Amino acid sequence: MFAGLEELLELVQGLPVTLRSLEEGAIFGAGEPVLSVSGRYLDFGVFETAMLGFICQASGIATSAARCKLAAGDRTVISFGARRMHPALAPMIERNAFIGGCDGVAVVESAELIGEEPSGTMAHALILCTQDERVAFEAFDEAMPASVERVALVDTFQDEKFGALYAAEVLGEKLSAVRLDTPGSRRGDFLKIMQEVRWELDIRGFEKVGIFISGNLDEEQILRYNHVADAYGVGTHISNSPVVNFSMDIVEIDGTPLAKRGKESGLKQLWACRNDGTRMPTLADRDIQSCPQCGEMMDATLCDRYADGRSLEPTRTPREIRQKVLDRLVSLEL
Amino acid sequence: MFAGLEELLELVQGLPVTLRSLEEGAIFGAGEPVLSVSGRYLDFGVFETAMLGFICQASGIATSAARCKLAAGDRTVISFGARRMHPALAPMIERNAFIGGCDGVAVVESAELIGEEPSGTMAHALILCTQDERVAFEAFDEAMPASVERVALVDTFQDEKFGALYAAEVLGEKLSAVRLDTPGSRRGDFLKIMQEVRWELDIRGFEKVGIFISGNLDEEQILRYNHVADAYGVGTHISNSPVVNFSMDIVEIDGTPLAKRGKESGLKQLWACRNDGTRMPTLADRDIQSCPQCGEMMDATLCDRYADGRSLEPTRTPREIRQKVLDRLVSLEL
Amino acid sequence: MFAGLEELLELVQGLPVTLRSLEEGAIFGAGEPVLSVSGRYLDFGVFETAMLGFICQASGIATSAARCKLAAGDRTVISFGARRMHPALAPMIERNAFIGGCDGVAVVESAELIGEEPSGTMAHALILCTQDERVAFEAFDEAMPASVERVALVDTFQDEKFGALYAAEVLGEKLSAVRLDTPGSRRGDFLKIMQEVRWELDIRGFEKVGIFISGNLDEEQILRYNHVADAYGVGTHISNSPVVNFSMDIVEIDGTPLAKRGKESGLKQLWACRNDGTRMPTLADRDIQSCPQCGEMMDATLCDRYADGRSLEPTRTPREIRQKVLDRLVSLEL
Amino acid sequence: MFAGLEELLELVQGLPVTLRSLEEGAIFGAGEPVLSVSGRYLDFGVFETAMLGFICQASGIATSAARCKLAAGDRTVISFGARRMHPALAPMIERNAFIGGCDGVAVVESAELIGEEPSGTMAHALILCTQDERVAFEAFDEAMPASVERVALVDTFQDEKFGALYAAEVLGEKLSAVRLDTPGSRRGDFLKIMQEVRWELDIRGFEKVGIFISGNLDEEQILRYNHVADAYGVGTHISNSPVVNFSMDIVEIDGTPLAKRGKESGLKQLWACRNDGTRMPTLADRDIQSCPQCGEMMDATLCDRYADGRSLEPTRTPREIRQKVLDRLVSLEL
Amino acid sequence: MFAGLEELLELVQGLPVTLRSLEEGAIFGAGEPVLSVSGRYLDFGVFETAMLGFICQASGIATSAARCKLAAGDRTVISFGARRMHPALAPMIERNAFIGGCDGVAVVESAELIGEEPSGTMAHALILCTQDERVAFEAFDEAMPASVERVALVDTFQDEKFGALYAAEVLGEKLSAVRLDTPGSRRGDFLKIMQEVRWELDIRGFEKVGIFISGNLDEEQILRYNHVADAYGVGTHISNSPVVNFSMDIVEIDGTPLAKRGKESGLKQLWACRNDGTRMPTLADRDIQSCPQCGEMMDATLCDRYADGRSLEPTRTPREIRQKVLDRLVSLEL
Amino acid sequence: MFAGLEELLELVQGLPVTLRSLEEGAIFGAGEPVLSVSGRYLDFGVFETAMLGFICQASGIATSAARCKLAAGDRTVISFGARRMHPALAPMIERNAFIGGCDGVAVVESAELIGEEPSGTMAHALILCTQDERVAFEAFDEAMPASVERVALVDTFQDEKFGALYAAEVLGEKLSAVRLDTPGSRRGDFLKIMQEVRWELDIRGFEKVGIFISGNLDEEQILRYNHVADAYGVGTHISNSPVVNFSMDIVEIDGTPLAKRGKESGLKQLWACRNDGTRMPTLADRDIQSCPQCGEMMDATLCDRYADGRSLEPTRTPREIRQKVLDRLVSLEL
Repeated sequence: MFAGLEELLELVQGLPVTLRSLEEGAIFGAGEPVLSVSGRYLDFGVFETAMLGFICQASGIATSAARCKLAAGDRTVISFGARRMHPALAPMIERNAFIGGCDGVAVVESAELIGEEPSGTMAHALILCTQDERVAFEAFDEAMPASVERVALVDTFQDEKFGALYAAEVLGEKLSAVRLDTPGSRRGDFLKIMQEVRWELDIRGFEKVGIFISGNLDEEQILRYNHVADAYGVGTHISNSPVVNFSMDIVEIDGTPLAKRGKESGLKQLWACRNDGTRMPTLADRDIQSCPQCGEMMDATLCDRYADGRSLEPTRTPREIRQKVLDRLVSLEL
Repeated sequence: MFAGLEELLELVQGLPVTLRSLEEGAIFGAGEPVLSVSGRYLDFGVFETAMLGFICQASGIATSAARCKLAAGDRTVISFGARRMHPALAPMIERNAFIGGCDGVAVVESAELIGEEPSGTMAHALILCTQDERVAFEAFDEAMPASVERVALVDTFQDEKFGALYAAEVLGEKLSAVRLDTPGSRRGDFLKIMQEVRWELDIRGFEKVGIFISGNLDEEQILRYNHVADAYGVGTHISNSPVVNFSMDIVEIDGTPLAKRGKESGLKQLWACRNDGTRMPTLADRDIQSCPQCGEMMDATLCDRYADGRSLEPTRTPREIRQKVLDRLVSLEL
Repeated sequence: MFAGLEELLELVQGLPVTLRSLEEGAIFGAGEPVLSVSGRYLDFGVFETAMLGFICQASGIATSAARCKLAAGDRTVISFGARRMHPALAPMIERNAFIGGCDGVAVVESAELIGEEPSGTMAHALILCTQDERVAFEAFDEAMPASVERVALVDTFQDEKFGALYAAEVLGEKLSAVRLDTPGSRRGDFLKIMQEVRWELDIRGFEKVGIFISGNLDEEQILRYNHVADAYGVGTHISNSPVVNFSMDIVEIDGTPLAKRGKESGLKQLWACRNDGTRMPTLADRDIQSCPQCGEMMDATLCDRYADGRSLEPTRTPREIRQKVLDRLVSLEL
Repeated sequence: MFAGLEELLELVQGLPVTLRSLEEGAIFGAGEPVLSVSGRYLDFGVFETAMLGFICQASGIATSAARCKLAAGDRTVISFGARRMHPALAPMIERNAFIGGCDGVAVVESAELIGEEPSGTMAHALILCTQDERVAFEAFDEAMPASVERVALVDTFQDEKFGALYAAEVLGEKLSAVRLDTPGSRRGDFLKIMQEVRWELDIRGFEKVGIFISGNLDEEQILRYNHVADAYGVGTHISNSPVVNFSMDIVEIDGTPLAKRGKESGLKQLWACRNDGTRMPTLADRDIQSCPQCGEMMDATLCDRYADGRSLEPTRTPREIRQKVLDRLVSLEL
Repeated sequence: MFAGLEELLELVQGLPVTLRSLEEGAIFGAGEPVLSVSGRYLDFGVFETAMLGFICQASGIATSAARCKLAAGDRTVISFGARRMHPALAPMIERNAFIGGCDGVAVVESAELIGEEPSGTMAHALILCTQDERVAFEAFDEAMPASVERVALVDTFQDEKFGALYAAEVLGEKLSAVRLDTPGSRRGDFLKIMQEVRWELDIRGFEKVGIFISGNLDEEQILRYNHVADAYGVGTHISNSPVVNFSMDIVEIDGTPLAKRGKESGLKQLWACRNDGTRMPTLADRDIQSCPQCGEMMDATLCDRYADGRSLEPTRTPREIRQKVLDRLVSLEL
Repeated sequence: MFAGLEELLELVQGLPVTLRSLEEGAIFGAGEPVLSVSGRYLDFGVFETAMLGFICQASGIATSAARCKLAAGDRTVISFGARRMHPALAPMIERNAFIGGCDGVAVVESAELIGEEPSGTMAHALILCTQDERVAFEAFDEAMPASVERVALVDTFQDEKFGALYAAEVLGEKLSAVRLDTPGSRRGDFLKIMQEVRWELDIRGFEKVGIFISGNLDEEQILRYNHVADAYGVGTHISNSPVVNFSMDIVEIDGTPLAKRGKESGLKQLWACRNDGTRMPTLADRDIQSCPQCGEMMDATLCDRYADGRSLEPTRTPREIRQKVLDRLVSLEL
């Protein structure tokens, strides 16, 4: 999934180049063209590394987020990504996790930046500071506005089973979900623990209390836990995800295709079938009328995003980009 | 390897806390304590995520750099890390790659920041723009100050063997090294290609021309290529390295040990044997006189770095930290 | 390890045969002879299946017990074997687990049979019935004679870490060990849990409280846990161990060697070197003076155990057999 | 497959408890409830280990037997299980092997106990004692009543191919099957040996002579050999099969659900769909009207087997239990 | 695939035996009869080893060729087999590679022997001798008759991408294909190299220039490269292919079946269903009317090829045999 | 191991070229030069394929033979190689198997060619024709000259154990060895079968009768069987061994090094250390005085073998070449 264009466009403001690319949130395959810059090399060569940096890391994060959301389906996925990465990156990480499909982000400042309410649950620190789960649960309930869901963290001192029952006893009807952040050393069969918590809550009438899990999750685990879990908090797997290995190469000089060994020469276009999304790269000056596989019309997906000194990209909110991504995910498989 | 303290200390400036930690560049093992913060939780709790971010990512980068340097031994390792990561991180990445053991960094600005000369070689773009390797080699030779080594990039248009011979023919005695950045599709047996280049250069009298390789390198490949290569340019493997999974937990309240499930309670000290570096964690108030294994004296490695509102860490240059790291690497194995 | 001879000798009482075999507790290798019966086939053929049954299952159990004890070294190994096997076998299982090296057996009746005190710890049922760990701990302490060690089962309701601290608080100096029978779903990294319990006990001054673990243990796990654990309760792995695949074949008829395909013919002897235990099978009428490898004297290990209608085996208590086994284990490796 | 109830009911005779369970021969899945005991703990706690022993080992044996029979389909499976297990267990082993689906059992006494004719073939000992296969074949033919099938053991001295032809020559039309108990060292490609025997018998007109194989068989091998074999003798794989890891836990006290960590609390019922056998556990006091998947009616499968001091289980012969098991196997897959 | 009969028939000329076999090019399975010799053993026993040699190696080569052709489908497969095998075998290798399905053979003499035009491309030696690709391309174009396709070898000095473009520039419309014999050390992702060459040729209007690849190819690689490649040169994989492990055994003496252990006795026939080719071996004197699976008629495939001192096999040219093989391949899968 | 030179020299007789190479039987490593031809390309280019064929296949066979002999140590290795390869190759195969280290060859004609007595044992055909092992053993004993060892083939009709005892009974003191050619379907644990035969022979006083095994042997199996076997017959593994992948390339034109991509240019010499055999390739005109590792003198191993129109290679008999090979094998490991 392509992302990072917004920051990149800010960088090139004022440069005498033309920039064409996919839109943010578009899906692409290995070896396909996603972005081209035309102009005098001396005018933009010095920015090459920075441009690459914007899209490689942003696309890596958005892709990981999309994979997690794809795995979770209707269940909630919250980005817990800010931890463990340099704080300067937090807004970038949270924005791209959100447009990639996450339902919410945990960092307050980042949430504001993308125009969303921050999501989250109570912290271990609250429980440790109060040294008493009941006090912590009640303090959280008292302090938080009614709009915030009551998600009780139940694994600080107690085993998950008894912790969940205790939270249900203390908060009763107000309890929205229990969060299981089970430490790795206690995570022998996490699915079994969840099933046990589910059983114990259910037989006591707490069928509506959700199970929110976190801790070292990735898409494979999400698929395994979907059977029981209702919401996921995903951290490092999204924020520290491998960057996408884009490279930026000279492919054409004064209209003549030329590229180094290992690269295909010529300015390119990427066509996508309106029917099933099949993609096909061509030279930029070719015009593909119909899909070679199904005959349906194809659209050119690399469009001018910046030219004549100004950005041509209409302003889209993160929420708008994300909505289009979610529409696309429906037809994809992991 | 522990890193990121410098930025963290800037963050806590002015906070009424005491911070103890390892020094930057220190080696630690899984589960060992590296940093503690003492104070009122309300005074620093809000910075917890940021603190963690500084050290997790910096330590991950420094550790990867150290592993590459350890693998390379006396051969040169240059950090090409800036590509593909968000440009805001470039100085942080290059600094920690350098203190982790890299011999140089490629980004000009970052190099200035850490007080070193930038390292690097000519770019593919230069050769493509000139469309003629001879012109490019000669232009580079002409433009660069004498202090910069002439490293010719020889794989743009030609096969490595003929490219290397051509560079030797054009630059003669001035040629310091040839850089092989062979694309993956042509990298069937990279070591064999290097050996072939080495043979062809040698039989024509260019025994002194070095072989500088780059492209998707990591420590395992470095070990394999050491037999022939003289220098390495390492990129994403260092800059996008997995973060170190530190976590920050409350372990003591008002002097009483208390920690959540899965964490060992109590404020801790980490002792290191003067003889062989054996490490041993204890409660902070214990005093270990001698190593339980060899009887030699042990040193406390977690020291006060910030207290009473000011930093206690003496200012060390990146070069000084790196030198101490190199001294430590001598006795380690991958 | 050879076992089951005692019961077998009871079976043949009165039969006109001669029986030679290893002594109980002797070590043998694949394909080596362990027992021979001489006589008219019609006199004992009908007992063939029963004879085989006695030694195959007993030897399987004794061997598993010996492997566990070998793995545990000086640490305690208790046989919890009676569970899950048909109760009629309990005395046989416990006897052979004991002579194989176990330090104690859990079943009262079996313990009496072999002349030992039963070993054990409190049960989950006690804690569940009282619904309160404190009550259970105190009741156990009150009811048990002073000679029984106070081993508190700490994982019924609580996480192991807090359960262990609670037991130490309730029983104080009297607490001998805490037993961790952690359920599989919570057993993510059992060694890590033990280390955590060890740390928390130690920093509060309970260095002498042992860690007794149980639940699906085998010799490989014992080796892994030896670093922290002090005692093991081993159940199904010993009691349901694979039987030793002995077979009983006719190998000689009226003094002439004859055996079916796949079997070596002739009545045999098994010689063992006094020096290093090297074993060598020969025909029964050969006399081996010295070890072909080291020259030391060799002993014939297949001796007459029953002849002329009566047993020739001196009565050895299980404790005596076990002591000799322990002496042998010293020089063996897993 | 659940088994061992008969013996368990004898044990509880006279105890003031209520016992509910599956019927013998019922299929269950991992984690599903199979048996509950209600009453005062002091009245039955002492029998807990024995109860568990009855059903764990019996269910393990019945399950292995069922898997073998399922693999063999219409082909005959005889339990050779008595060898290598303690002789006290023989009747229990053979009974449960039989109710699990075996077509016959080899031990005379056990066969009588379950009211069946013993099955079997001639022994290696007979051939060795006579030292002449012809004599052995003819002696067996002469001594045995006409109702016993003539199964000739053909691998004692000769290769299977020539042995089978020899038996056919000696016994002619009377020969029912040849038994191949090929030793492991000669079992390079057992299927190939059988095919060769089949071919040689067939081209000489002995198409009706069956092939009966034995020796270290399990269900995977049975599947492989089904192509040629007509009958199987299965020994240790059934008699020494792993026990089923049932555990017995307190799950409710005075009507209030309570269970230790890792166990689901509350007295339970197991429902099975009349349509496809889908099973669903619930609390015992729930009433499930219809299958959540297909809407068909569901039956409660845990029924009172003992209450008010007497057994409520109608007496079923092993043959009746087995017949119902065979009916169930039809719809199962390995 | 059965081959080598032609040479074998020459060997037996004049011998008083009857020889029956499959026809050359027939498909058979493991363990099926392919050839029988009837007569006095003294008359032909001395030739047994030679007979076996003819058909084992020829069938091995034909089978490998057929597998490659099956993998390549409509694409061209040329046997480059003569290299690395003893030159005395060249005609035998090329003949059997051809009847197995190869479209051409590279050795001149062998081609004449089987009545086909030799196939091939220019050699590395030509380019090295001229030291200039242009000279070599033009010389080849000038010297070769118009009927020979212009296949330019483009990897001698240049990278494949630039070499292919250079050949297209020099030979223009006359260029039929470029041959990529990429050395293993440069073969990182051979498919990627081909795709790049394909792209660069296409965007410059050379869509009709084919891609001919060679070098260590086998059927698995052919399947992988089919996506882009148009023709294959296969060498050692066909010429040094493993021999078929036929063995020749006495199976009948004076009409009575007798064979050593491991072999099925009796003179045999192999029947093949006209419908789907299902094969079934029987004794030679049986008559199978219809396929046991589908009821369709079956044909006897072992026919008299030599009897009464003369060959009964009608003379078929290699081309005729090959055509029938190609017809058979249509319905097979790898 | 280098072989095939003798035939190659016959081919070049009369050509105006100079040929330098290793001597037959020399050891070389991957990528090392073994042979060079100097002259006008037009004078020898047409023979390139044939030259390569001679040495590639011969070296492959000699290498496999040497590996088998190296594995067998003092035990006998006979080449049974003629079967399954085209009969035209038999002399070439047997010669190179012999110089590679085999102790004998089975084909009469080939044996004469290399000046050795043919080795071998009786055939299955003899036993089948006589239909009686006793007759066959006695006939063989009667017909063969006293110089031929009596090796009885004992697995035709009987199991190996009884067959071996029968041969010993029939031939008594004259029996030299029993040959076990056990069919694959009966080869479950071949070593176990041998041990059983060994045991049965020994206990009856036939300790001097050797065990000769054959059938699908390779060096790994030889290593496994060395414990018991005395002699090996190796067939297809030597005769159908993979060819050595030599290639022949132009590396120098008129004294100037030039080679295609992937090949090292320049005429070469291969130096070998007198001390430990360390090899080092250099340009042909360099002179290496001493080993770079140990300082010992080094010898040039590529010597002129043909020049000025005549062979310079002194005539060495296969026996002489083989003796030198055996001397070399002493210091090698598999």
